[in-house]
Amino acid sequence: MTDQVVLGIDVGGTSFKGAVIDETGRTLIAGSIATEGAQGEDAFAILERFVIGMMAQAAAQGLKPAACGLISPGMDERTGHVMFSSNLSWRDFPIGPRLTASLGLPVLPGHDVRTAGLAEAQLGAAKGFADSAMVMIGTGIAAALVTGGQAISGAAQMACELGHIPVYPGGEACACGQFGCLEAYASAASIARRYRAAGGKQALTAADIAMRLDSDPLAAKIWNEAVQALAISLVTVTLLLDPAVIVIGGGLAEADEVLLAPLRVALQQRLAWRAAPPIVRSELGSRGALLGAAILAFRSLGLANAASGWQSGG
Amino acid sequence: MTDQVVLGIDVGGTSFKGAVIDETGRTLIAGSIATEGAQGEDAFAILERFVIGMMAQAAAQGLKPAACGLISPGMDERTGHVMFSSNLSWRDFPIGPRLTASLGLPVLPGHDVRTAGLAEAQLGAAKGFADSAMVMIGTGIAAALVTGGQAISGAAQMACELGHIPVYPGGEACACGQFGCLEAYASAASIARRYRAAGGKQALTAADIAMRLDSDPLAAKIWNEAVQALAISLVTVTLLLDPAVIVIGGGLAEADEVLLAPLRVALQQRLAWRAAPPIVRSELGSRGALLGAAILAFRSLGLANAASGWQSGG
Repeated sequence: MTDQVVLGIDVGGTSFKGAVIDETGRTLIAGSIATEGAQGEDAFAILERFVIGMMAQAAAQGLKPAACGLISPGMDERTGHVMFSSNLSWRDFPIGPRLTASLGLPVLPGHDVRTAGLAEAQLGAAKGFADSAMVMIGTGIAAALVTGGQAISGAAQMACELGHIPVYPGGEACACGQFGCLEAYASAASIARRYRAAGGKQALTAADIAMRLDSDPLAAKIWNEAVQALAISLVTVTLLLDPAVIVIGGGLAEADEVLLAPLRVALQQRLAWRAAPPIVRSELGSRGALLGAAILAFRSLGLANAASGWQSGG
Repeated sequence: MTDQVVLGIDVGGTSFKGAVIDETGRTLIAGSIATEGAQGEDAFAILERFVIGMMAQAAAQGLKPAACGLISPGMDERTGHVMFSSNLSWRDFPIGPRLTASLGLPVLPGHDVRTAGLAEAQLGAAKGFADSAMVMIGTGIAAALVTGGQAISGAAQMACELGHIPVYPGGEACACGQFGCLEAYASAASIARRYRAAGGKQALTAADIAMRLDSDPLAAKIWNEAVQALAISLVTVTLLLDPAVIVIGGGLAEADEVLLAPLRVALQQRLAWRAAPPIVRSELGSRGALLGAAILAFRSLGLANAASGWQSGG
C-alpha cells in the first residue's frame, strides 16, 4: 500500500463538498461550504477558495493529493465544462480547466450523478448488475443509466436527464423552461414549493413533509403526487431500458420506505404486462458522489481497480 | 464469392414476410402472407406453412438457405420465444425452437425492431453514429436504441418498448392494458381508430388520413395529436439517451415530410434548453427488417461482416 491520496470535489446546487480519500477508500478529511445563492463568477470564486482550502488542510496534515476528481451536474466529461446549471447560473462554464490552472494538478471531470452511479455500481446497491438505473432526487433529479455494463452518456454527453422528461405534458412550469417535467413535481425543492403553493401554512422541507403524512392531508397529497410523478418516469425507464434494479439516492432517499414502499406499488400498478424491477435505496448515500470522484481520480493515476477492495459501509 | 444464401423471416402483427438473400445483400426470392386475424396456434400454423413454402421455392431454383434469421416483435433473442404479442395472442411462444425443428436448419431469433435498427445502423440512416434511436411506427410502435455503439436490450431483453411509455398518464386505453401509452395515440392503427371514434365518416387508414390534412379538419386534428404524442416520447428519448440522430421507420414513415416536418417542430418546441437531434426517415424502409434478419443469419455462419459491402439502395 502506498500513501497516495486524491481530492474529490462535489459541486452541488446549494453546497460544495470535498474529501481527501486514500487508496483504501477511507475519507481522511472532509469539508463543505454552502453557496448561499451565489451564481456565475461569484459561485466559482467560492468553489476555488474552498478547493484551495481543502488542499491547504491536506498539506497541514502532510498529505499531497495527486489528482482531483471534480463532479458537477451538467458536466461535459470530455471538456470539464459545466454545460448548464440553473442553480448556479452556469452555461458552458469551464470549471475543470480553471481549477486545473488554480491547483496545478490533474482535474478529472465527472457528471455528478453518473459518477455517483459509477460508485454505486462498483460498491453499492447496483453492484453486479449489467443493467441498472440510479435515480438521484435532491435539489434536482437526474439518473445514472447503465446498459450492458456501460454507462449511458449520449452523443453530446447530455443523456440521463431524467428530471426533465415530461411526466405531465403541458403541466406545471419547471425552472428549466419546459412544462410538466418530473423535477417540477418530485424534486425535494418542488415538493416543498408545491406544499407552500397549495396553502401549506408552514415553510416545510420535503423531509418535514415526509414526516407528517399521517397527520397532514395536504402533506399526504403533495407527497403522493411526487410519488406518482416518479412512478410515471420509472415506467418509462423500465420500458425503455429494462433495468435489473432501480436504485434511489439523493436527499429524498432518506425518507426510505416512506418513499420507496408507495413508489413500488405505483410503479407496478402502472405496468400492465410486465413485472416492475426492484426499487432499492442507495447503499452509499451522499458519500457516493465523492467516492465516485475519488475513483475517477485514482483511475487517472493508473489505479483502474482502486475501488475493488473498498467497502460500501467504510 | 460463394453462393451461400440465407432465409429471412419477418413475423409482423398482420402479415408474415420472407426473403432469400445472398451474400451480396441481393433479395433473390421474396414473399408474404396475411395473417387475416389468426391467433395462437392458428397463427403459428400459417407461419410454419409459409416458411416451408419459402424453402420449397428456394429449392425449386436450386438454392439451399444455410440459416434462417427469424424476427418478431417481443422476441427474446436468447431463447427464440416470443414473450408477448397482442396481435397474434402469443405469450412465451417458442417460435424459434419450433421452426428449428420444422426446418432442420439453424434459426437465429431477432427482435424485429432491434434487427431493423441493426440493419439501419450498418447500412442506412444511422450508419456511422454510435448513439441513435430508430422508431418504427406501424401496427404498433417500438424502438431500436443504440448507445455507445451498443444496442440496448435490457436485463430481460425487454427494453426499447417505446410504444408503451406513458405520454399522457391516465389517458386513453391502450390494447396492452395500460393507459396513455404512445401507441394509443400514434400508431397507424390508433390514428385510424381515433379518427373513426371522433366521428370520421369513412373508414380511413392512417395513410389516407395523412393525405387529407388540408381538406379535413378532423384528419388534421387526429394527425396533430399523433405528432404531439410522438414528440413527447422523443423529448424523453432525447433527454434520457441523447441520440445523434432519430430515424423514423415503419409504415407511417411513408407519410415522409407530412409526418417528419411537424414532428421536428414539435420536438424542438418541447425542448427548452437543448437542440433537438435531427429526425430523418429510414433509408431501408420496410426492407430493413429482412435485411437485418439476413445479417443475423450470415453472422451465424461466421460471416460477421457480411453486410459491410451491401448497398442501402440495393
